[in-house]
Parts: sequence; structure tokens; C-alpha cells
Amino acid sequence: MSQYQPVRFVNVRLEGAFWKERLDTVLARTIPSQHDKLAEYGILESLKLPQPPPPLRFPRHANGFTVQVFWDSDVGKWIEAASYALSHRRDADIEAKIEAIVDDFEKAQAPDGYLNCWYLGREPEKRWSNLRDNHELYNAGHLLEGAIAYYETTGRRRWLDIMERYVGHIRETFGPGPGQKRGYDGHQEIELALFKLYRLTGERQHLDLAAYFINERGMPSPHYFDVERQAREEKGWELQRYVQGTYEYSQSHRPVREQDKVVGHAVRAMYMYTAMADLAAELNDAGLKQACETLWRDVMDTKMYITAGLGPSAYNEGFTYDYDLPNQTAYAETCASVALIFWAQRMLHLDLDGRYADILETALYNGALSGLSRDGTNYFYMNPLESNGTPSRWDWHTCPCCTMNVSRLVASVGGYFVSTASDGIAINLYGGISTTIETAGTKVALREISNYPWSGDVRIEVNPETPATFDLKVRIPGWCVGASVRVNGEPVSAGAVNGYVTIHRRWSAGDAVTLDLPMPPVRIFAHPGVVMDAGRVALQRGPLVYCLEEADNPGGRVQRFRLPREAELRTSTRADLFAGTDVTTLSARAVAIDESGWGTLDRTAPPAEQTATGAALPYYLWANRGQGSMVVWVPEA
Amino acid sequence: MSQYQPVRFVNVRLEGAFWKERLDTVLARTIPSQHDKLAEYGILESLKLPQPPPPLRFPRHANGFTVQVFWDSDVGKWIEAASYALSHRRDADIEAKIEAIVDDFEKAQAPDGYLNCWYLGREPEKRWSNLRDNHELYNAGHLLEGAIAYYETTGRRRWLDIMERYVGHIRETFGPGPGQKRGYDGHQEIELALFKLYRLTGERQHLDLAAYFINERGMPSPHYFDVERQAREEKGWELQRYVQGTYEYSQSHRPVREQDKVVGHAVRAMYMYTAMADLAAELNDAGLKQACETLWRDVMDTKMYITAGLGPSAYNEGFTYDYDLPNQTAYAETCASVALIFWAQRMLHLDLDGRYADILETALYNGALSGLSRDGTNYFYMNPLESNGTPSRWDWHTCPCCTMNVSRLVASVGGYFVSTASDGIAINLYGGISTTIETAGTKVALREISNYPWSGDVRIEVNPETPATFDLKVRIPGWCVGASVRVNGEPVSAGAVNGYVTIHRRWSAGDAVTLDLPMPPVRIFAHPGVVMDAGRVALQRGPLVYCLEEADNPGGRVQRFRLPREAELRTSTRADLFAGTDVTTLSARAVAIDESGWGTLDRTAPPAEQTATGAALPYYLWANRGQGSMVVWVPEA
Repeated sequence: MSQYQPVRFVNVRLEGAFWKERLDTVLARTIPSQHDKLAEYGILESLKLPQPPPPLRFPRHANGFTVQVFWDSDVGKWIEAASYALSHRRDADIEAKIEAIVDDFEKAQAPDGYLNCWYLGREPEKRWSNLRDNHELYNAGHLLEGAIAYYETTGRRRWLDIMERYVGHIRETFGPGPGQKRGYDGHQEIELALFKLYRLTGERQHLDLAAYFINERGMPSPHYFDVERQAREEKGWELQRYVQGTYEYSQSHRPVREQDKVVGHAVRAMYMYTAMADLAAELNDAGLKQACETLWRDVMDTKMYITAGLGPSAYNEGFTYDYDLPNQTAYAETCASVALIFWAQRMLHLDLDGRYADILETALYNGALSGLSRDGTNYFYMNPLESNGTPSRWDWHTCPCCTMNVSRLVASVGGYFVSTASDGIAINLYGGISTTIETAGTKVALREISNYPWSGDVRIEVNPETPATFDLKVRIPGWCVGASVRVNGEPVSAGAVNGYVTIHRRWSAGDAVTLDLPMPPVRIFAHPGVVMDAGRVALQRGPLVYCLEEADNPGGRVQRFRLPREAELRTSTRADLFAGTDVTTLSARAVAIDESGWGTLDRTAPPAEQTATGAALPYYLWANRGQGSMVVWVPEA
Repeated sequence: MSQYQPVRFVNVRLEGAFWKERLDTVLARTIPSQHDKLAEYGILESLKLPQPPPPLRFPRHANGFTVQVFWDSDVGKWIEAASYALSHRRDADIEAKIEAIVDDFEKAQAPDGYLNCWYLGREPEKRWSNLRDNHELYNAGHLLEGAIAYYETTGRRRWLDIMERYVGHIRETFGPGPGQKRGYDGHQEIELALFKLYRLTGERQHLDLAAYFINERGMPSPHYFDVERQAREEKGWELQRYVQGTYEYSQSHRPVREQDKVVGHAVRAMYMYTAMADLAAELNDAGLKQACETLWRDVMDTKMYITAGLGPSAYNEGFTYDYDLPNQTAYAETCASVALIFWAQRMLHLDLDGRYADILETALYNGALSGLSRDGTNYFYMNPLESNGTPSRWDWHTCPCCTMNVSRLVASVGGYFVSTASDGIAINLYGGISTTIETAGTKVALREISNYPWSGDVRIEVNPETPATFDLKVRIPGWCVGASVRVNGEPVSAGAVNGYVTIHRRWSAGDAVTLDLPMPPVRIFAHPGVVMDAGRVALQRGPLVYCLEEADNPGGRVQRFRLPREAELRTSTRADLFAGTDVTTLSARAVAIDESGWGTLDRTAPPAEQTATGAALPYYLWANRGQGSMVVWVPEA
């Protein structure tokens, strides 16, 4: 099969209501407000070197935190998100703000190219002494991704030049050569940035450095994190008394090709698997591809929430054991679902297998999108699947990684819809886009018109400049039963293979493909190993997972509901719930516990019950109407 | 009402099968094996000063930990537990081991009395610079409790003398006077030890110092933990970059009398409330007593597991929000339930109100006792109420606090059974004990004969040396419906008041009281606010909470069971399950999910079901027959 590549987001115009609203919100509100927060929390000030000695002048907030070792990365990620936004519409004010940040980094950079404001400002002699914990290469990766995005949008090279000097220093410092450190970062990320730099510049050395970091990871005898810890101890720098986590925490417990179980910190894991898939694609490395596929199956079979949330535990921000998917304490970090989207996209393009697009879509519409509020200025770091009403969205976080991960995702979401090869076009996602693509020797103007994810009626207009023969591959989502495809009104008899119906024909201007993707609401049952969901059921319609939220079910906690197996699930379209968005809601007759006069915590008298109507909302929309309880997995009556 | 005081454990002989077995196990196996572990893990070696510079010579285990700042406390707690054991039967070997430890402490003690092996061995100049995090006074408290227990058992003063010198140094260092630090420990504990020292010596200064620590806690403007942090920053000692928790974590967010919600680290909270109740009793302080009662209600109404486990969250080892009682991720530290027993005992003796004894009993038979294995050498630090089979008992822990908390509890458990006043005797717990008590001017030989907690048939023989008139108060457990009491075969018509039936009469040798405490198995329903237990039911019989464990229900995860509301709960007595103990088990006809061939993680097809018998075991006995799944709150069918 031809090699499909994603069409970059800058070439995809979002026209459908769903994503246009999200993108407009991110451009108008999220990107500017995130800069305000970077300033308010002292993060921008932390870039101004030299820094004063402790006690620091940086704003000290109620919780007492000052300078975080990973703040550079947040600045880099904001520049990346802001640059994507600038691709949609230029903004002199935002560009001036980025230039001011570049001024600071330019001043901060050491003569040898090193650039980390935390170390340069506080402990310059300790640079590269604790890769395990201190995020130096992680920071470098995000700064580099920001620099690449800014250059791609504006053509301005200054920031990219700074970062290329830093990458040069990193290349000299790390590697298997004499005098080099055989290290890699405790938090994977730079690998992804180096692939981007390689693709931008075509310089093989960047690919090689990424490959080094991936291949060196987890090599034993001695383990690098032990080597550097011993060096710290010898210098008297090792002050931590507590356990700093296991090798598994950073997926460095064994060489990456030998890893077959998903372990540790979820975001680190997803970034690493993404980089592994990148490397597998670049080098056509079958062994690495197989490792990716094994790890993918492990996540899918035993470790993923129905929302595509990942990592049940706050303790390690990550994975625990098979089927451990608690609902109320789900960590399910927004960043992890965003990173799963990255990984799924890489896997999708290895073979154009729709099961990867299925998960990409699930993460996009559920576990990742839930991280951003309707108003675009509030966030979830954790995305629980059940709430007693206590969690509410935050306008910032001491570790603001998720805020910019979701803004950069939405600002570039068009990049996930369409892929191309030399002789074909694949439509991976629906939702209303237009693009122009070169394939089979001609330019093809493509327009996908739908009200997806609310409706499965999709029309695709295919307008080649000159008639041409190529594949049009349309994805049939894994959740869909009974899909049908027509070309110019005539049914297509071919069934979906690997999740795509392939229409191979000579295309001419005016051709149109229509899809009918039925999306009745359905009940979902969890694997019995997921003991938290024993006796419970979830509701889904199309790619959207639903939840019962107190705002739609006033009168107490929504955990009062029990849903009979036979109760009909009804749909309604509501324009009144959220301005600018039609929302399809669900409802059903249910049984509700009457908790009035309950008294003590536990009692021998069973709860009284009455019939009531339960109303369900797409999960990604929860917690936008004040605090209240929420549940995805509802007990059955 | 007369003031009731507990009869010390040394005066109470355990004769019933249940506690005799546990005590014998602790004496024969737990106490000696704990000394072995203290040696194996380098904890005893850490007392030998001067210590070498890093890298340390202490055993470095697989998880990389070395010297913990709180190790002194573990040694103190082992000495306390071992001393209680010596009260039951002297042991020259154990005594020699304690003396060897005292040798080390004697050598380590600074000329001014200061004694903390971590600081003296590593950073002597930093003593008392971080009370918030570093447990110095907490360690002192446990060392002092150990010294008191050892002195009370053996009459040897050397260890107590060392500790009295240290207490003198602490008294000079802390207080409101000029040049004194207005500090208190981040981890409450020393207050409890100072009360014991006050009661031992009668010296008011010890009570005053405890009162100072309690009253100073949480005083604002400035908060002491900020004062000391600022001092560390000025000296360049503040290296922590991450948030170290909130004031609430250590219950120092406001003065203790103003606290009305239970917050933060569960063990710290319970120790503090215990000390508050101690102080309320000593000073007859109505305001402090009221604060204790308010906090008690908060725990009971919204924050306690059915097992009397406390603290749902591993993140802060403590409390979160009302009704947050997840089962599988329950932290429910053994120490917290042990500490709840301490607090409940203090509350019980303020008014002799049986509701405190109810909770004491629940914690004793469930959340605390579950922390110790049948063989006496394995432990639970966390006591979840549901398991997929992953957790297993540990033979030690990097933070071994729970191991010695449960051994000191069992070694002194006789002290919770009986209380006396000048004109009465109260029997708080049943289980087969004998004791001789002075009341109403005579010696009363008392014998309580029962097979409790397996049976509610209790016989109490009352043999005063000379006939005398006094109250005999027998507790009617809160779980009991339809209790009856007889004196010499004649029904007692008085009902229970505050949980006790009071029999006021002239007692003569040969008198006997019999109790019939019916204990049918019952279903328990959780408050609807405990959303994790929606649609679920727990089983209880007498004071024992039950669980379904895989060992009794082979064929897959016990979460496959759903229990119909109408299914009869049957009891059996099993002598074959655990050597030396008859166990009452429960069983019922249930519905079981058939998970064979399930496939993917989530699916639209509902699970197949079949009928099956579910067997339940007392919760405290779980995880003694290998790994396997377990559930307390069973979904209803």
C-alpha cells in the first residue's frame, strides 16, 4: 500500500460547526489568556537571567510554589500553540510577545549553546546532573517544537537559530562517543522535537540524535540514572531522602524494543511510543513497529478508559495494573490523551489501519477535549469519569502542561482529518473541512460537509482540477454498525477493510460521495476485569461518550440513578444548553434513590427508590455549568 | 457520673480464643521478627553515630532508599511494643536487644540533651529547622513512649532518664518565652507521649508542654511553618522546589479549638484529636471537648469506611472531601485505624458513651486488625475494601510505622476491655477476659466468658471480696438489635442508656450477669453520598465486616458476583480455614457474570449471567491465603 501522510493543519480549513467553534474559542480566548497566566505566575519572569538568590522575587502564590524546573517547557509549548494560532490569523500583539520571550532566551543562552533558565539561573554548575528528575531535555524539546512552529508560521529564524545552537550542544554532550554522557531524559519529549527538526531541515543528524535517545533508553549495566545518581552522591549533591520512583516510571526499565507492557508515567509513555513509531516509520524498522503494536494492544486491552483517558493513578501520574480503571479517582491527565492522539496518528500512518483512527477520535472527542472549558480559559488536568461535585475546572495549574497541550491540539486539529499518498486520499475524521490536495498528478479540491459528531450524514465533494484515477478512502468508524457509502448516489458495494472503504475510480469535478453512518445511542459494558464498573453501564452515541451531570438532573447527586437494562434511550437536539453549539442529549426512564433523611453513613435499611428520568450529556461538555456530580458508568437497576 | 478510667492491659488477662491467639502470635512471632527487620533494613545501624558520609553504608535495597528521617520513631515504637510483650512474659533476649539500642541512644545524645540520630548523624547544624517535614518531635514522642513502656515493665530507668533529659531540652527550646521557638511538629505525636510522662511522673511541666504544643498549633500571623521556611531560605537551606502540602495536611490551618472539619494526613489528625481529648479530660476543658465532639461527628457522618478505615487518598495519606470513600484505592492506613482506637478510647472516657466504644470495636476488629497477617509477620499498610488481586501483604515497608503500631496495639489490647470508677465497673468489649478491680471499697474479681466476636452469648462472673454496692455497666453494641441482660438468671428491665445497661445493686460473690447479643448477618447500605457504593451492599455480623475473597470463591474475580436483595444469608462455623481459630463464614445464592470469551475492554453486548453461591469471610482475615481478588461492597443483582 502507498504510504499515507497527514495533510498539515494549515492546509485544512475547518468549516463544520463543532470544530470551528472550538478553534475560534482557542484563538480568541485561550491563547491570549495563557500568556496572561504565564506572566501572572512568574513563569515569564523566570526566564530573565540572572535570577536573584532565594528568597525569590517570583510571585509566591498561596500554595507556596516558586520556580518549577519545567517552566521552560510551558513557555515553549505556548509559543507552539500561539504559532499554530498565527497560522490561522496573524496577530501583531502575540508576535511581539513571542519576540520578547525570544529576547530573554537569547540573553540567557550560554556561550556553548546550553539553554535552561532554571539551571542557568540557580545552579549552573549542576547542569546535566539529574536527567532522571529535572526535565532538561524535555524542556529543550518543547522549546524546539515552539521554535519550529514559530519559524514555519512566520519565517523568522532567530528563535530557531538559538535552538539549533542548543541542539548542537546537546548532540556534543550526549552519545556513545568518548567523553559523552550516555544519558537520556527522564521525561521523553525531545525525541519528538528532533523528528520535527529533521523533517524541517532534512539534516540526518537530528534523526540520529532522536534514534540515539530512543535506543539508549533503558540499557542496563550500568543504568544511566544510577550512574548520574552516584556522581551526585560523590559530589554531595544527592539530597533526596525519599524514593524517586522506579525505572518503570520513566519507561527506562529495559530497552524500548523489549518493552511489552505499558508502565509508568502516562505522558512519558505516550511521548515515547510516539517517538518509537516515528522512528519505525523513518527507518522502516519492523522490530520497532512490532514493539509499538504490542504496547498498543496492551493499552487497548487492559488500560484505557472508555473516554481514552490514560493512567488511573495520581501517585505516578500513570499506569498501575491491568483493568485498574477507577472512575472518581481517575487521573487520566489531559496531556496523556493528547499524547495518545499523537501516538495514534503515527500508528495510523504506518498502515492506515482505522482502529488507530478510532482511538484517535475517541481521545479527541472525549479524554482530550474534556480538558478545555467551553469558555476556553479553564481546564481539567485530571479527567475523572465520576464526580461527587468537588472537582471544578481550574484557570491555571502549578504544572500547566495540560493547558498548552490542549490549546496546541485544537489550534492544529485540522491536521488529523485527511491523509494523502501519491495515488490516494484518506478521510480519517469527519466534521466539515475543505482542503486542496495534490495526488495522482492533479490538484483535488476536497470538501467534507457534515454535522458530525452530532450526525452521521456526511457528503464529500471531490473536485479534481483534471479527471484522475486514485483511491478515495473513507473511514467507517469502529463504533458504527450498518454504514453505507454512495458515489454520486450509487451504492458502493465494497466493505470496509482495516476500517476504510476504498473507492478506486476515475474522479471528475462534481463527483460526490455520501456516507450514512447510523449513530443510535448504545449501552456499553466494561470488561469484568474492570471491577469498578461491575453492574454498571455507560452510554455512547457515535464517537461521544455520555455522562449524567447534576446540571441536567437537579435534585441531588446523579449517582442516585440506576438504569434498567430495558429502558429506551431517547435523543434530543438542544440549542439552549451551550451558546453556539447544538448538542445531542440522551434521556431514559430510570430508578432514583431517595436519599432524604438518610442520616448516618452506613445503615441496615435499604434505600427507597422511585422512577425518574435521567438525562445524559456528552462527557467532554461536563463541568461547564458550575460544580455538581457526574457519572459515566451508571449502576444498572 | 463518676469518671471512668480504663483498666491497664497488664491487669487484664486475655482468656478468650480470639484475642489469645492474636496475642500469642504477636509475642511469639511479630515482636522478634520486627527486630530482625529493623536490623536487616539498616534501621538499627542508623542509630550508631557518627555516621559515615554519603554514599551511606546502610543497606541499599532494590527501591534505593537509605536513611529515613523518621527511623528513630520506628525504633521507639518497637521498644514500646516489645515492652508490652515483656509485661506478658519476660524475655532476656528481647531485653538485651533493647539495652543495646539504649546504649546507642546514650552515646548519640548531645550534651544538651538533644537526641535525633538522623540530624546528629548528618546535619547537626540544621536541628529544629524544619519541624513541618522532618518529624523531630514526632520521633521524640515515640522514643519517649518506648522509654515509658520499658520502664513500666522492667523498672529500669536508664532509657527513661535519657528521654527525660531530651524532654528537658525540648522544653527549653519550644515555648512562648524569649528566645524560644514557637514551634510544634508537622506530625503530631509528642503530645501523647508527654501526657503519658505526666501521668507517670505527676510532673505538671509535662502536661503544660503538651498543652503548649496543642494550643500553639495553627496560630496565624505568622504561621510557624512559614517562619521556619523563611529562616531556611535565608540560610540557603531551602532546596525543595515542589509544594510540600498545605497547612491542612498537618492540621495547622487554624487553632485546634476552631477546627470543625477533619482534614489532611489521617494519622496526624487522629493523634492530634487523641491529644485534644486527653487535654480536655485533664483540664476539664469544655471548649476543647466540644471541638473533639464536632470533629468526631464529621468523621462519623462523612469520612469513615465501614471497616473504620480512615483516609481515602494515598496522595496526602489522608482525607479529601465528604463521602469520598473509594474502595480499591482506599488508603485506610493501618496506623490511622489504630490511632482512631486511641481517640475513641479517650472520647469514651469523657462520658462513657457507648457510641465511642462502637467505633473502637469496629476499628479493632476490622480496619486495624486487617493490618496484621495470620502468621504475625506480614502486614498491610493500606487496607483497601476491594482488590483485583494485586495487593499482597508485605513483610516490611520503607515506612514501617504500621507494623509496630499494630503490634503495640495487640500487645496491649486488654486495656480496652474494662473501665472503672470509684463506684462502678464498665465492660466495654467482650471476648473472654479476667481481671481484679478495686471499686466501692472492695476488690472485685471479674471474669467475662464468651466466644465473642463469633457469638453474642456472654457470661460475666462478679466476685467481690466483700459484698458491695456499685454499678456494673455492660455495653450493648450499637449493631445489636434485641439484646437482653440477666442477673443471676433474672431479666434486667433497664434499657441501654448511652450504649450501656447499668446494673446498680449490691454484688456478692457468685453473682453472674448473662448477655444475649443476637448477631444475625445483616446487609448494610452506604449513604448515597458514597457514590462508589451506589447499587452495592455490604455484609456484617456482630462487629465483623465481611468480604468475598477469591480463595473462598474460586473461578475468577469475586467482582463477578451480584447479590439479590432477597437472597438469604447463611452462617457456618469453619475450623478448617485457619489453624487455631473457629471462623464464622457467610454464604448466599448470587448471580455471577460469565466473563469467558469477553475479548475487548468495552463492548456493547451485556455480560452473560448464571446463578452461583458466594462465600464471605471476615474482612480482617483477607489476604492470608495468597493473592486474589476481594470485595466488601458487592453489587446488588
